[in-house]
Amino acid sequence: IETRLPKVGTTIFSVMSQLALEHKAVNLGQGFPDFEPPEALREAVTRAMQEGHNQYAPGIGVAKLREQIARKTERSYGRRVSADTEITVTSGATEAIFAAIAATVRSGDEVIVFDPAYDCYEPAINLQDARAVHIPLTLPDFSVDWQRVRDAITPKTRMIIVNTPHNPSGAIFGADDLDALADVVRDTGIVVLSDEVYEHIVYDGALHQSVLRYPELAARSFVVSSFGKTWHCTGWKVGYCVAPKPLSAEFRKVHQYLTFCTFSPAQFAFAEVLERMPDHAEELPAFYQAKRDRFRTLLADSRLQLTDVPGGYFQLVDYSEISDSDDINFSEWLVREGGVAGIPLTPFYETPPTARLLRLCFAKNDATMQAGAERLCAL
Amino acid sequence: IETRLPKVGTTIFSVMSQLALEHKAVNLGQGFPDFEPPEALREAVTRAMQEGHNQYAPGIGVAKLREQIARKTERSYGRRVSADTEITVTSGATEAIFAAIAATVRSGDEVIVFDPAYDCYEPAINLQDARAVHIPLTLPDFSVDWQRVRDAITPKTRMIIVNTPHNPSGAIFGADDLDALADVVRDTGIVVLSDEVYEHIVYDGALHQSVLRYPELAARSFVVSSFGKTWHCTGWKVGYCVAPKPLSAEFRKVHQYLTFCTFSPAQFAFAEVLERMPDHAEELPAFYQAKRDRFRTLLADSRLQLTDVPGGYFQLVDYSEISDSDDINFSEWLVREGGVAGIPLTPFYETPPTARLLRLCFAKNDATMQAGAERLCAL
Ligand SMILES: CSCCC(=O)C(=O)O
Ligand SMILES: CSCCC(=O)C(=O)O
Repeated sequence: IETRLPKVGTTIFSVMSQLALEHKAVNLGQGFPDFEPPEALREAVTRAMQEGHNQYAPGIGVAKLREQIARKTERSYGRRVSADTEITVTSGATEAIFAAIAATVRSGDEVIVFDPAYDCYEPAINLQDARAVHIPLTLPDFSVDWQRVRDAITPKTRMIIVNTPHNPSGAIFGADDLDALADVVRDTGIVVLSDEVYEHIVYDGALHQSVLRYPELAARSFVVSSFGKTWHCTGWKVGYCVAPKPLSAEFRKVHQYLTFCTFSPAQFAFAEVLERMPDHAEELPAFYQAKRDRFRTLLADSRLQLTDVPGGYFQLVDYSEISDSDDINFSEWLVREGGVAGIPLTPFYETPPTARLLRLCFAKNDATMQAGAERLCAL
Repeated sequence: IETRLPKVGTTIFSVMSQLALEHKAVNLGQGFPDFEPPEALREAVTRAMQEGHNQYAPGIGVAKLREQIARKTERSYGRRVSADTEITVTSGATEAIFAAIAATVRSGDEVIVFDPAYDCYEPAINLQDARAVHIPLTLPDFSVDWQRVRDAITPKTRMIIVNTPHNPSGAIFGADDLDALADVVRDTGIVVLSDEVYEHIVYDGALHQSVLRYPELAARSFVVSSFGKTWHCTGWKVGYCVAPKPLSAEFRKVHQYLTFCTFSPAQFAFAEVLERMPDHAEELPAFYQAKRDRFRTLLADSRLQLTDVPGGYFQLVDYSEISDSDDINFSEWLVREGGVAGIPLTPFYETPPTARLLRLCFAKNDATMQAGAERLCAL
């Protein structure tokens, strides 16, 4: 059987979680918390099942949930969007990203992605027989060189995919980045796909620069988020896409034949907690900032160099004092011999840099962080 | 914005459910039961959430669930498949169908579908820049004319999509159909996608002719099913695909970037009930046959002609004694004026026949069936 994705193997997240299990390593690889979603949220799922919300939800999502997402969008970013025509609930952000790409990118098109790029973008582009144009972020702070973006635009450029807070680096966009992005796409047919799943996890008082704050950009963007990171339930797979009506209409055509709809009881549950716990998202930065700071303190005596972490729940560490292996080999050695699973950055690059960096997830409770840090300090 | 799916509007199921709601009609349209999944299943979801199964499941599905699917496959169809390499859990059958198509169908390929064809097949094919070749089933019993299939094969034929029990007609394949299918694809590169979501709903003692019973066919097939129909929870969206290792490998490459994984607590819950309630599926034919027979009895005094229903949970009715409108107009009139929502067949055809048929769902409790039938008898 011929393959349609010749460059694709098993995603590094699955590979590393599997290795972590086999070697009983502390799993700081795949990005998920090892603590639980709020009890109120789980109870709301149970209640929704008992109340009989077990059949197909509307394909575009449960109305109450879309209304709550509209409120949240206004409260967080000052932007009014229509629950009816501009919000679509999906089976996680991954489905939303795929649907946005499949709805707009045609054979032969080019899509600009920034490396290191989350690994679902390029396969989705390639399945459209389109091509990803990779622009590396500039180290050490993983910033965008907007001149390189301008130079990369061709008549075939159909989409630019941005991701802030950025996974895996933790970098966040400033207002200047959004202005530069708006300049680049102005008067073109280019659409923007903005992956903002870590929207509520930014530190040190920074503001999340959602594309939704910028009317000119929002008018041509798919903005994708998810409840998995915000509500500590990455395995529930409820995400959504906000896009202007014409883009949403095309998005929905694809979505309805991709998954049609999403686990109904959880949709009712999220509608409920978004209404009853409006402060949850606002409390998230402090919650995760304490974890970030604690993790950094725990690693202070290690031979790892820590990069700055403006957002997200990952710490990049430079291990060049410990090893000069490449990051794939180092991460395999680390999970087998060092007892800690982390994520190498190479799989997210077309042309990996020589930097010796590993991504470690700090969305963990104290005991896990401590166990991981002890092993890392012993290296 | 250019559309990638020019022929696609909102799926007829969403349109009709929305109209049913607006007109307070008895909804016999979209295929879902109006009764609940077993209490034990809902409790198992709650327990899984309490036990902390709230983060990413393995992308290919929770191991225990894949093992139970493997057992079920052996018990039902005498076929041993590997839980590790041949079974993948998906976000409903819809995702599995899309992934199977995206994994194997290339630009310019042809895919044979039988009309009336479930409406997610063709958009998934078209998004690959491939073409659906429509072969109408032969009325009145919606059988396949295999000679027409043989005549339709070209060097570009990449896939044949079959669906038994068939939606919307209720027709089921016999052993002769499977033999004919095997003949058609033997010594070709054609793969088969077999949509078997109604696998456990066959009547009058008939045997479900799963592709999995036929080793030669199974070796080149994606067999798709779902727990939504079998366990009365269409809104939970847990499906799966069984395919030989090389096909599963390609399928998984796509699946991991389509949704990555599926609501974890439900996966644990299905693993549990599949183990604890092994008779559930075997009891389903009698359960639904009673509903089918009851519904037919209730309609005996109407001016609707009932077709035979060998499988599935839909009754086709010929309304030509009542109206000579086409089925789209009739179904709109019926939901507005007659107070009953049904599904017209035209949306599932490239070239609709002149038959005056409507699909009615009888996966309903007595009161709903009775209310619907009363209104239908009054026409
Ligand atoms: C879908 S598995 C990967 C989860 C994630 O977002 C990450 O680890 O970066
Ligand atoms: C995904 S909505 C349609 C449900 C269904 O299988 C049907 O009504 O045929």
